[in-house]
Amino acid sequence: MKFLCRMQVQFPESMSAEEVAQKQAQEKEYSQALQRSGEFEAIYRVVGKYANVSIFDVESNDRLHEILSGFPMFPYMSIETTPLSKHPNSIR
Amino acid sequence: MKFLCRMQVQFPESMSAEEVAQKQAQEKEYSQALQRSGEFEAIYRVVGKYANVSIFDVESNDRLHEILSGFPMFPYMSIETTPLSKHPNSIR
Amino acid sequence: MKFLCRMQVQFPESMSAEEVAQKQAQEKEYSQALQRSGEFEAIYRVVGKYANVSIFDVESNDRLHEILSGFPMFPYMSIETTPLSKHPNSIR
Amino acid sequence: MKFLCRMQVQFPESMSAEEVAQKQAQEKEYSQALQRSGEFEAIYRVVGKYANVSIFDVESNDRLHEILSGFPMFPYMSIETTPLSKHPNSIR
Amino acid sequence: MKFLCRMQVQFPESMSAEEVAQKQAQEKEYSQALQRSGEFEAIYRVVGKYANVSIFDVESNDRLHEILSGFPMFPYMSIETTPLSKHPNSIR
Amino acid sequence: MKFLCRMQVQFPESMSAEEVAQKQAQEKEYSQALQRSGEFEAIYRVVGKYANVSIFDVESNDRLHEILSGFPMFPYMSIETTPLSKHPNSIR
Amino acid sequence: MKFLCRMQVQFPESMSAEEVAQKQAQEKEYSQALQRSGEFEAIYRVVGKYANVSIFDVESNDRLHEILSGFPMFPYMSIETTPLSKHPNSIR
Amino acid sequence: MKFLCRMQVQFPESMSAEEVAQKQAQEKEYSQALQRSGEFEAIYRVVGKYANVSIFDVESNDRLHEILSGFPMFPYMSIETTPLSKHPNSIR
Amino acid sequence: MKFLCRMQVQFPESMSAEEVAQKQAQEKEYSQALQRSGEFEAIYRVVGKYANVSIFDVESNDRLHEILSGFPMFPYMSIETTPLSKHPNSIR
Amino acid sequence: MKFLCRMQVQFPESMSAEEVAQKQAQEKEYSQALQRSGEFEAIYRVVGKYANVSIFDVESNDRLHEILSGFPMFPYMSIETTPLSKHPNSIR
Repeated sequence: MKFLCRMQVQFPESMSAEEVAQKQAQEKEYSQALQRSGEFEAIYRVVGKYANVSIFDVESNDRLHEILSGFPMFPYMSIETTPLSKHPNSIR
Repeated sequence: MKFLCRMQVQFPESMSAEEVAQKQAQEKEYSQALQRSGEFEAIYRVVGKYANVSIFDVESNDRLHEILSGFPMFPYMSIETTPLSKHPNSIR
Repeated sequence: MKFLCRMQVQFPESMSAEEVAQKQAQEKEYSQALQRSGEFEAIYRVVGKYANVSIFDVESNDRLHEILSGFPMFPYMSIETTPLSKHPNSIR
Repeated sequence: MKFLCRMQVQFPESMSAEEVAQKQAQEKEYSQALQRSGEFEAIYRVVGKYANVSIFDVESNDRLHEILSGFPMFPYMSIETTPLSKHPNSIR
Repeated sequence: MKFLCRMQVQFPESMSAEEVAQKQAQEKEYSQALQRSGEFEAIYRVVGKYANVSIFDVESNDRLHEILSGFPMFPYMSIETTPLSKHPNSIR
Repeated sequence: MKFLCRMQVQFPESMSAEEVAQKQAQEKEYSQALQRSGEFEAIYRVVGKYANVSIFDVESNDRLHEILSGFPMFPYMSIETTPLSKHPNSIR
Repeated sequence: MKFLCRMQVQFPESMSAEEVAQKQAQEKEYSQALQRSGEFEAIYRVVGKYANVSIFDVESNDRLHEILSGFPMFPYMSIETTPLSKHPNSIR
Repeated sequence: MKFLCRMQVQFPESMSAEEVAQKQAQEKEYSQALQRSGEFEAIYRVVGKYANVSIFDVESNDRLHEILSGFPMFPYMSIETTPLSKHPNSIR
Repeated sequence: MKFLCRMQVQFPESMSAEEVAQKQAQEKEYSQALQRSGEFEAIYRVVGKYANVSIFDVESNDRLHEILSGFPMFPYMSIETTPLSKHPNSIR
Repeated sequence: MKFLCRMQVQFPESMSAEEVAQKQAQEKEYSQALQRSGEFEAIYRVVGKYANVSIFDVESNDRLHEILSGFPMFPYMSIETTPLSKHPNSIR
């Protein structure tokens, strides 16, 4: 089951550069493990923004929220989630 | 070069069911040819809407506009285009 | 799997009262069959609007879109869909 | 009398993790007592957000505001309230 | 129980001046009966717009929707409803 | 001359509970004096929000701004003002 | 008492060029009479739009609504009204 | 003096393909004459939309409105105008 | 050449009352000098807000930006600028 | 390949005037090097705002994001990016 998520990141001013770098490293590790698992199908950078567009392929809403709220940077992200279904014109 | 496009469809009231069906058939043919060409990487239906989310992989802005404005249903679509670039966490 | 859907209805001016009444009757029949099936958990009228708030319990995004796009009044509705998951404070 | 409330939570940066955890515990206790009382009919997590969608069944506007403003996390919540009434198609 | 309703009116182009005048007359009669009943506490014209701001005092959401959807001009109105409760500073 | 004002309150994080309580007490006193004077016709709490809807009956725009900017909590309020005039259907 | 009004004009498609021209002529006459009376202090064209920004100096809200709703083009205008008061820095 | 204008085009349904084509031809002629005159510095197509982004270099607001309202397709365009001035970092 | 500017003021929490008062005094002096020069034609307070609506009569966009960015309170203001031109109905 | 970028700048309160000045100097140097390279075609100040409108001519989305995210002031900017293509009426 596929979802499109757009994630905008905003770290608080009070966070030090070290803390930010640490969070980003944890995020990368968490994200790449999910990508390898197949549940995290694609992630792209939105040009000009500290934001990404991602496609997830998961078994349920609960699982998707578990993944999203598990992101180390979740407290600093605003996420818009769009449920997707098969398009009649898709050849895939 | 990748772009995310969200397309919302709105046929005018005055169009007959036959005209709509004809346009949809032309759209399917046009869309599937592009998908086979590789420029049209993915298309998903947005749940609950007559809208889709699509990912294109094209060589230039001009080519993308050529593709989008060539859709038979282009006059009846409102399209939001987001330029994408490689995400540092992507494993692809 | 639960979803909240808010549906705003807008019939075109050109539709006769009879056509509207017919669509509404078909919608009622379709809706009540789904409610009895258990997939359509609740429907409420939004006070002051020709709109409803509904909760669906379905197995997948595809099934939800199948249900929504199957509504006889689907062409005259604007639907916002919010995927829901279990709340940690819920006792149900 | 039913109301749909959507609550988005935003704790201030200056609050310590302990204070947040304490507020969340108080909120859970308050929420579950209301759920058991029957006035708090349902609460769902909005996927991807620190937000919930809730349905209340209360006797008056005053009572609803009393409940909402009594939430321990009320100062950190933005709440949109939609009054609901019986839908003509509902079988419940 | 009090509600604030803001009603914006938009008659369709296709309606004749006579039909509009007839609807307005029916609306006035319906409105003034409600005002005399006490459920319709106040109605003001929004300066510069074909819109009003009204305050209702009703026993339930269902009753409010019954009143609002019963307005002869309901099909031509967009209504925003705000549930109100007693303000701690009010001397009334 | 009547105006509808919607006031949303947002105290800064840095303000202590005591300062807030003091401002609220001053606001209540200021508000109730105006209500007794007749210029402040009605004030209601918006359900679920730290906001109110108020109706003023004043002699001029200048006087209204004088009243609004004189509220002790004015620096912490966002106020939307709608000028009202007599509605042709009003029986008052 | 001063008000800023922004008026956006949108004639319906079905109106003939002659009808539009006739309305515009009536509007000009009505507008210039008001300007000479002193109640209509200034009118400017918004660059690039069929819209204007106007400043009125009137004795009451009722009078302003009377003026605005009396415009021959009122049914084809969307008007945003901002009540103004004397600015402490103004030398006029 | 430079302005950025974004123009979104929307022809009414009732216009025939011939009328549209005729307007477009007139627009092209008008536009290219202005471009040659130097007042119309640049025009780009917005990818995926029947819209353009244009930069004008004109002597006054009045002149800009004269140009914009003179476009044959002006009645079918929604134009947002942003006044520009010299940027301190610009090397031009 | 005329422009309408709407300026909303928001001082940061961290600024002391003295600093604010000092900025306001500098702003008044700067503003009144411009008003006397004729470039600053009118300034009105928006009722209920710490905002103003102003009309400038300047020779160019560059000059207008020079004036606006020269306001002592410029860093604490959000300014919307609307270029104006002569209205065909204006008698001035 | 051309893109229109609108950049709104907002430095955090906590940054000292010196830090801001330093960032601005770095930004100027970075910006002017790009302008000389030809990838940064034009930059204009938006009148009345700490914002700019810029046109880039780059080989790919990735390159554009590289440029934008490389701006010393990138963390303090909100950037809207519009992909542009050749307009059929353009004489350039």
